Amino acid sequence: MKIVVTGSGTAGSNFALFMRKLDRRAEITVIGKEPTMQYSPCALPHVISGTIEKPEDVIVFPNEFYEKQKINLMLGTDVQSIDRERKVVITDKGEVPYDKLVLAVGSKAFVPPIKGVKNEGVFTLKSLNDVRKIKAYITERKPKKAVVIGAGLIGLEGAEALTKLGMEVLVVEMMDRLMPMMLDKDTAKFVQAGMERHGVSFRFGVGVNEMVGSPVEAVKIGDEEIPADLVLVATGVRANVDLVRKAGLEVGRGIIVNEYLQTSDPDIYAIGDCAEVIDAVTGGRTLSQLGTTAVRMAKVAAEHIAGKDAAFKPVFNTAITELFDLEIGTFGIAEERAKREGIEIAVGKFKGSTKPEYYPGGKVITVKLIFRKPEGKLIGAQVVGGERVWGRIMTLSALAQKGATVEDVAYLETAYAPPISPTIDPISVAAEMAMRKFK
Amino acid sequence: MKIVVTGSGTAGSNFALFMRKLDRRAEITVIGKEPTMQYSPCALPHVISGTIEKPEDVIVFPNEFYEKQKINLMLGTDVQSIDRERKVVITDKGEVPYDKLVLAVGSKAFVPPIKGVKNEGVFTLKSLNDVRKIKAYITERKPKKAVVIGAGLIGLEGAEALTKLGMEVLVVEMMDRLMPMMLDKDTAKFVQAGMERHGVSFRFGVGVNEMVGSPVEAVKIGDEEIPADLVLVATGVRANVDLVRKAGLEVGRGIIVNEYLQTSDPDIYAIGDCAEVIDAVTGGRTLSQLGTTAVRMAKVAAEHIAGKDAAFKPVFNTAITELFDLEIGTFGIAEERAKREGIEIAVGKFKGSTKPEYYPGGKVITVKLIFRKPEGKLIGAQVVGGERVWGRIMTLSALAQKGATVEDVAYLETAYAPPISPTIDPISVAAEMAMRKFK
Repeated sequence: MKIVVTGSGTAGSNFALFMRKLDRRAEITVIGKEPTMQYSPCALPHVISGTIEKPEDVIVFPNEFYEKQKINLMLGTDVQSIDRERKVVITDKGEVPYDKLVLAVGSKAFVPPIKGVKNEGVFTLKSLNDVRKIKAYITERKPKKAVVIGAGLIGLEGAEALTKLGMEVLVVEMMDRLMPMMLDKDTAKFVQAGMERHGVSFRFGVGVNEMVGSPVEAVKIGDEEIPADLVLVATGVRANVDLVRKAGLEVGRGIIVNEYLQTSDPDIYAIGDCAEVIDAVTGGRTLSQLGTTAVRMAKVAAEHIAGKDAAFKPVFNTAITELFDLEIGTFGIAEERAKREGIEIAVGKFKGSTKPEYYPGGKVITVKLIFRKPEGKLIGAQVVGGERVWGRIMTLSALAQKGATVEDVAYLETAYAPPISPTIDPISVAAEMAMRKFK
Repeated sequence: MKIVVTGSGTAGSNFALFMRKLDRRAEITVIGKEPTMQYSPCALPHVISGTIEKPEDVIVFPNEFYEKQKINLMLGTDVQSIDRERKVVITDKGEVPYDKLVLAVGSKAFVPPIKGVKNEGVFTLKSLNDVRKIKAYITERKPKKAVVIGAGLIGLEGAEALTKLGMEVLVVEMMDRLMPMMLDKDTAKFVQAGMERHGVSFRFGVGVNEMVGSPVEAVKIGDEEIPADLVLVATGVRANVDLVRKAGLEVGRGIIVNEYLQTSDPDIYAIGDCAEVIDAVTGGRTLSQLGTTAVRMAKVAAEHIAGKDAAFKPVFNTAITELFDLEIGTFGIAEERAKREGIEIAVGKFKGSTKPEYYPGGKVITVKLIFRKPEGKLIGAQVVGGERVWGRIMTLSALAQKGATVEDVAYLETAYAPPISPTIDPISVAAEMAMRKFK
């Protein structure tokens, strides 16, 4: 069987590896634009800050690793079109026939049409190449003042990295808070205060309408000119769907797939950032665009091609980040979004400490839980604190994935030790708070 | 309603607080032997090491806190008997009538009948008073060599504390490994190596048969005399049941209760270390003797007395500890115990890193998962590593509490960020390993 993967990122690379494990004999070919296989886009801000030394370090395995597993690599190759009737992928290096085609074509940075957005010193932060350009620019021009457009995960992680390099950083966000897709106003403010303590400034509810100078010297917000010798545009990503749409496959904001990740053509699968998934809370279609989602999609698609039928489950979009001395974890739906979408909920919120009071070094932690009414299912959480946030968001997300209710969280058996956590965990207390609203 | 609690530890204190929240008018009286209300026995090793400065610091709330909530305290009081017909508790300070009686009489350190076990310099580590005596002894005599008898949690945490104070520490354990109730040999060896790196020595499969000298100068293992100027006896705890047995209540290794924590007398409840609970894996009766279990029992008993009927669930005994630079988390059943008890299982094990390879500072972590055959339910886990163990054991335990299977863990949606965790979590990989054994 000829299995062709277009895209050499997280989804494509992991698919090739899973597929090889499941089928020793399949002919597997990966066609990729970049010269290397998967690397972690989430690691890129850490390359800028210097925590990860060299851009190349983020590449998960060298090309030889895949080649040793008899995965054919066609890297540095452009896919021009897909001929579904003849079952061939047409590239700038010739035609590649397939029995099964897996689209792992990813996403690209969305760059809003702002005047001067292509000027020197204005960057996106999506690819290894972006990072190389940013690092070269910083070495050469030693920028002092940076403006980051967009306060999503990548924007904030970029802001942290530039701050750590000694720059004065302003984050400009159209919405009224940071991480507007993931956090409510209350938790967002907690994160904002944390970043401000480290010198990052914020402007909300405004947009940048011009980059002045090339190399850039300032950005314009309305008529106000703000000095900036480096600008990061982090206004989200868009699924790569043009080529797929031309091939006549069903496309929404991303490629539409069934629970086995087959597109409207059953011999063509789509996985990773380019494909739509089902939102576990709303039941609607959404783009997840997380590395973890890409890996699970890769696994399910490989298994389906290998003849198994484990379905890909709806996603909660469990996410974690670290910004200076805060960890921020979220999944599911936020309070304000639930209200906008008419979902009736009960919220439990608790601000406590990560350790018992008698043990030194505890850090503040805020837990906010969202339960659906009337049945009490856990459908979202926001946890922000100085440590042990990851463990709590993982626990809560795992519970939600198993259909847990407010009682399950309130009576949860937790693990306690004085240097690690309190006897009564903040997540249980937050659930207790919500439980009172179910009477 | 007159509600009397005997025992002022974690179970009794929390019960009184929960009860007060649920019933503003009940007459609540706590009878306790010690002069203060709850403190954390798990915190005691940290008082010895000096991480927690003063013994008094581990007391959760001052007595006034309870008194302000109109909880009557009869501390420094000995319960002599219970007259169930007249419904009174008879103490050395008079009789106390009750409508509902809650036994939270805890456990005591088990001291094996070794020759010289009462000599000066030989201690248990169960109460605040023990800690005061140990600290005074250390200040006065400046011991250099310590022997700890018993390699359970308290023994190991005690060994760590004494090592941190500069002592040379030998742990002697009758069984063939450390933490024999919680860990298999493989994971126990990993923990042992971690403690040995910090200078702790171990002798397994042997017992101490004599303490020589008072103040102690040596311990005898067979004919071998090992110098020791401080000895810690940490050979487990026993439920306090003598008084309860005399009152004619049903008693096994602990007080026997139903799912609402009522004893064989429905007006008498038992909670905390003194009461038996149901083991979630075997379905048999067991003693949990964890602070977290005590708190949940306190809550359920208070709710039942207040007219609610949330049942107390079987326990997985989720536990965590930190020993030097390792965290150790466990719950449920270990591989070897499962085999001894004839439970058919599949095991998945994976040794990985806590961070992606390209991010600096990742630590080794071992995840061992136990699934029941043939249905694949998660029934136990052992996680040992340099960081982020708590989050994983919490996640796994929460999954087990919700009846998760090997597929649930293998396909779990996890939260990834380079400074925090790998894209494919070690717990998913371990589950994947186990899944292969279900074909």
